Formats: sequence, structure tokens, C-alpha cells
Amino acid sequence: MKALVYGGAQRKSWIDVPDPVISDPRDAIIRVDTVTICGTDLHILGGDVPAVTPGRILGHEAVGTVVEVGTGITNLVPGERVLASCITACGVCAYCRKGSYGQCLRGGGWILGHKIDGVQAQYARLPFADLSTYKLPDSITDESAVLLADILPTSYEVGILNGQVRPGDTVVVVGSGPIGLAAILGARLYSPSHVVAIDKADARLQAAKQFGADATVKPDEDPRELIDVLTDGLGADVVIEAVGTPATFELCATLVRAGGRIANIGVHGKPATLHLEDLWIRDITITTGLVDTYSTPTLLRMLGAGQLDVGHMITHRFPIEGIEAAYDVFASPATSGALKVVLSRHTR
Amino acid sequence: MKALVYGGAQRKSWIDVPDPVISDPRDAIIRVDTVTICGTDLHILGGDVPAVTPGRILGHEAVGTVVEVGTGITNLVPGERVLASCITACGVCAYCRKGSYGQCLRGGGWILGHKIDGVQAQYARLPFADLSTYKLPDSITDESAVLLADILPTSYEVGILNGQVRPGDTVVVVGSGPIGLAAILGARLYSPSHVVAIDKADARLQAAKQFGADATVKPDEDPRELIDVLTDGLGADVVIEAVGTPATFELCATLVRAGGRIANIGVHGKPATLHLEDLWIRDITITTGLVDTYSTPTLLRMLGAGQLDVGHMITHRFPIEGIEAAYDVFASPATSGALKVVLSRHTR
Repeated sequence: MKALVYGGAQRKSWIDVPDPVISDPRDAIIRVDTVTICGTDLHILGGDVPAVTPGRILGHEAVGTVVEVGTGITNLVPGERVLASCITACGVCAYCRKGSYGQCLRGGGWILGHKIDGVQAQYARLPFADLSTYKLPDSITDESAVLLADILPTSYEVGILNGQVRPGDTVVVVGSGPIGLAAILGARLYSPSHVVAIDKADARLQAAKQFGADATVKPDEDPRELIDVLTDGLGADVVIEAVGTPATFELCATLVRAGGRIANIGVHGKPATLHLEDLWIRDITITTGLVDTYSTPTLLRMLGAGQLDVGHMITHRFPIEGIEAAYDVFASPATSGALKVVLSRHTR
Repeated sequence: MKALVYGGAQRKSWIDVPDPVISDPRDAIIRVDTVTICGTDLHILGGDVPAVTPGRILGHEAVGTVVEVGTGITNLVPGERVLASCITACGVCAYCRKGSYGQCLRGGGWILGHKIDGVQAQYARLPFADLSTYKLPDSITDESAVLLADILPTSYEVGILNGQVRPGDTVVVVGSGPIGLAAILGARLYSPSHVVAIDKADARLQAAKQFGADATVKPDEDPRELIDVLTDGLGADVVIEAVGTPATFELCATLVRAGGRIANIGVHGKPATLHLEDLWIRDITITTGLVDTYSTPTLLRMLGAGQLDVGHMITHRFPIEGIEAAYDVFASPATSGALKVVLSRHTR
């Protein structure tokens, strides 16, 4: 088969590789029908995720069709259409038993396109496939479903739920890429008073408005001043970091009110400065997190019922063979206007 | 009267100053009967709290007798014996109405010995005295009560409750000074599996055992190795920072398990490095906080009922006139063995 293989910093190529095979009774093999590229893949190419080594097939967000299952699989049969979640879960370790699937101790967690080969390929092996896939009803398209492989549950669990967004809150989302936009969508579910989007790019701030931001500001336009106007000078109740740089994280700490929360979603490759000399006295809560995907069934149901409007998220479509070009488009949002780019087995 | 006046970095002196006077209808004046020195006072002398300016009377932990009340006071009369809390609360601002008294927006919060004159003096003015004092039953001695002015509610609210200590947890307390020891005492209320104390000083680790630590280790003795033994390699459920330096905060981040919590109590004068490149994926929660004192009535009741054994906390006693010498003893625990030093109006 063909797959997108990581070749070390900034290098990847769509090349021939061996077909995946069942190597454990709890594995399944899927044919990849729809797949997307994540900001995390760009962090990998940028060297921020050193656990990814050259030769690794990238990708952790796909919809596919089951083609083969191991003898230990009880919940899937070949031919079924499934969401391949970014999180793999053994289901039996101490973390999985608490629903903390992202921290699985027995070979799960975020492994696809990270510690094992991923789904930017024609076929993929999914370990612990009973728990690591979700069957898809016909009412949900591949393109909508694939957004639930990572970005929607990630922004919801790690941003909105960790940040404990509540009705009446002023929520600031730093970064209006796909994860930030999904966080805006998630924040709106809690009836906040204000959702403020911060990004450098005009096009992304426009997108933020489509997803529900009622105010937008660039980092160099004094966001604190805007937030002070919205909050009587107190600061934001919840600030969500959706970029993954020291500067954006440190910006969050300047925007939050005493007693407020900073929820970090961004994938970081470098340390940040934590200004404890200012923060120690201010009752701040900072959370980090990898998605567990415990919210995925709920989000799938809401998507099927039309409660999550993700229609503006996908901006570019490619055949899977065009994935190298798709990476270029996705990595250059300032010129391409890309949000999510989707790759399909069949050219439309 | 006489008072201990801050004179700029590392300088303080017990000198004549004007008597305090009622300046607002909600003020009360107390005669200070028992007062103590806080680690925060040492942070002030060390320059970590620049809001404290030369000329300020220090101190925020006292028991006293009401000598005069303003016309707006409804809950106190002269002659009553009260705990003067480190936190002053207006009671009507948005934060006070939520019980976040430490973040009072209308002139309260931690102001004594910080933004206004404090209680290391023969007399003191207490703003918003109805809400900022607690009447003391005869069953509670001055020496026990004064520990509830700051360190017991601080370690309990900012350490134990923010850290969400739960039965069965492994709790690590970094720093075995008075705040750390009080945190150990507080952690024990939640039936943890282990309480590990970390400190450089043998004497303080001995004290930690008296307060309930079942394991102790020095920072240079590989605390992570000990914690791995206690937690099957996972790390601590809750790590409490009770020192206030970048190094001790950064140590906390190396000891916590995925999904665990770091509760910062320490007063910090410098930024710390937050290793987001490691932490972003590990579901860590970091909290900071100033005490609100919402737990003070409960802790007073528990103290009166014998549920809080603070008998080992006070190591040195001085007459109030000896406060300069008491500072020297308190600031040199390695040689003096000091935990809390208490100063009284009457020499015993």
C-alpha cells in the first residue's frame, strides 16, 4: 500500500510500504476512506514531538471500513464503517478504568502516527479496536465524522470541560486554527456572555466569528484592553490556549481574572515562563491535557442531531494520493485560507 | 505605641509609631495579645513582595482584644477576644459574595502588613472588622488560635482543597516549614495512602514525621525514585509546593503523575519554568491561591474539639518587645530549630 511516511524534521513522503497485518487478537485493519491532517502533525514535522521517529506513518484522524479483525474482537465485523479515534484504549489499565483513555498504561493513549504507524495511508492497523473505534450511523458523513477523531473531543474535553466554562463566562480562545474554532463552538454550548478569539490572521478571525466568537482581536492589538472592557477590568473567566507556543501560553496568563482558569490544548515543544511572582496570589488554575475521547459518543449524537455546526471547518479536499500537496496547503493558512483539509479514497 | 516597621530590603525595627485610629465606620481597633511571624514576612524582607513599602508595620496573624469599634460595626464590642485573620473582607464585592475573600475588590484581601499597617504592634486597626475577625471561645488558647490566622486555613484551602486530596492518594509536600507541616496535618484528614515530606533539613523532616508524614526525603536524594516505589512508577496524585522558589516548584512538576495535581502555596518572587513540552500531554492541573479563610470557622471548631493537633508547631516564645530577636530565630531554622515563634503581650 501507499502511506505518508515521516522522514525526520520537515520531511514526509507518500511512498510504498508493507500492508498492515493483525499482530494482536484485539487488532482490526481498516481501509482508510477519509483522513485529515492535524496541527499536531505540523508540530511533529517541526520537531516538537521527539517520540515520533523517521519511518513512522503519520496521521491519527480517519474514517474507514473494517476489512479484517483479530480473534479477540467482539464488537466489529468486516464491512462496518467506523471512526478511528486518535486515542487507543486498552480498557483494562488503571487509567482506562477511570475513563482516562488518553493516559492508557498498556500500549494505548495517543499512539497512532506517534508511537505506531498511523492512518495517513490506504490501510491501517488499529490496536484494541473494540474500544478505539466508533461505529458511524449513515446520517453522519465521513467528512463530519472525521472531525470527531480528534479536534472536536480535544477542544471540548481539554478546553471547555477542563476550563470549566459556565454560563455567563467571558471565554478567550487564543488561536483560531481548527482546534481554536472547535473550542469556540464548544464554548457556545455553555451560553457564555462573550467568546473572544485571538489570532494574527484576519481570515482566521473571520472564521472565528462564523463559529461563534462575538469579539476578535490580534495579539498586537492589546487584547487585555478589550477584555477589560468586556469584564469591568477583571479579566477573562476562562482562557483557552490553542496554539502551542511559549508566547501564546504566556499571553493567556495576562488575560485571566483572579480565580480564573487557563486550559492548555496546544501541543508544546518548548518550556514557557510561568510568572508565579504574579500568579501565586491570584487563585489561578492551569490545566493541560490529552483528549480521553470519553465525550466522543455524546458529540457523535449531537452531530447527528444537528447540534454541532461544523460545516465551515473543511476548506480543502484532496484525493489521498495528493496528501503531500495537502500538507503544503494546510501548513500555509495565511495564503491558502485552510482550516481543515480532508483527503478521500475516491476523488470527488 | 510600638510596632515592627519595615525599612526596606532586610530591614525592620521595633519603634514608636502613632496609635491606630478608627478611620472608617467598619473598622475596629484591637490590642494585640498574641502575634506570630509568617514565612511571608521573610519573603517581604527578601524583596519578593514589592507592594510592601518602607514604613509599613508588618504582620498579619494575631489574636487580640477589641478596644474600640466604628459606628458601622454590628458584631463586635470592646472587650471581646478575637482572631484577626490574615484576610480582610468587605463582604459585598463580587468576589466576597462568592466566598473568595482573598480576592476582595473593595480594599480587602491580604492587606494587613502588606497594603496597610499590620499586627506586629501593640495595637492594630482592622478594616471590615465584623467579617475579618472570629470570636474565640475560652476553650481555644491564644497560641492555638493564632495558627488559624493564616497557616492552617492557607495550607488547608490552597494546598489540600485546591489539590483535591482524596482517600488513597499519595501526597507529596515540598517544604516542611510551618505551612508544609500544616499541609501534612491537613492531608491526613483525607486518609491518604502516603504523605511524603521533602525538605533539606533533618530537623524539619523529623517534624514532618510528627505531623503525619510516613516518608521523608531530601531534594538531593532522588525523591522521584522514592515516589515511584510508593506509586508503582506512576508519580504522586497531589504535590503541594510549600516553599516559594522556582526550584521547588519545578521539582513538583517532576513528581506528579499523569492526571495529578500541583497545588502551589508558596509565595513566589521570581518566575518558574513550566515544562509544557513534557506536561501538555499529561493532564496536569496546577493551582495557585491566596487563602480566602472560608474554612476558618470549621478549623476553629475542629481545633476546639481536639481534631487538629498543632501542639508541636510553636517552638519559641518571646515577649512582643523581643520581636527583632524572634525574627532572627525564625529566619534561621537550621540553627534555631524554629517552626512557629509566638510573641505575647505578657512575658510568660
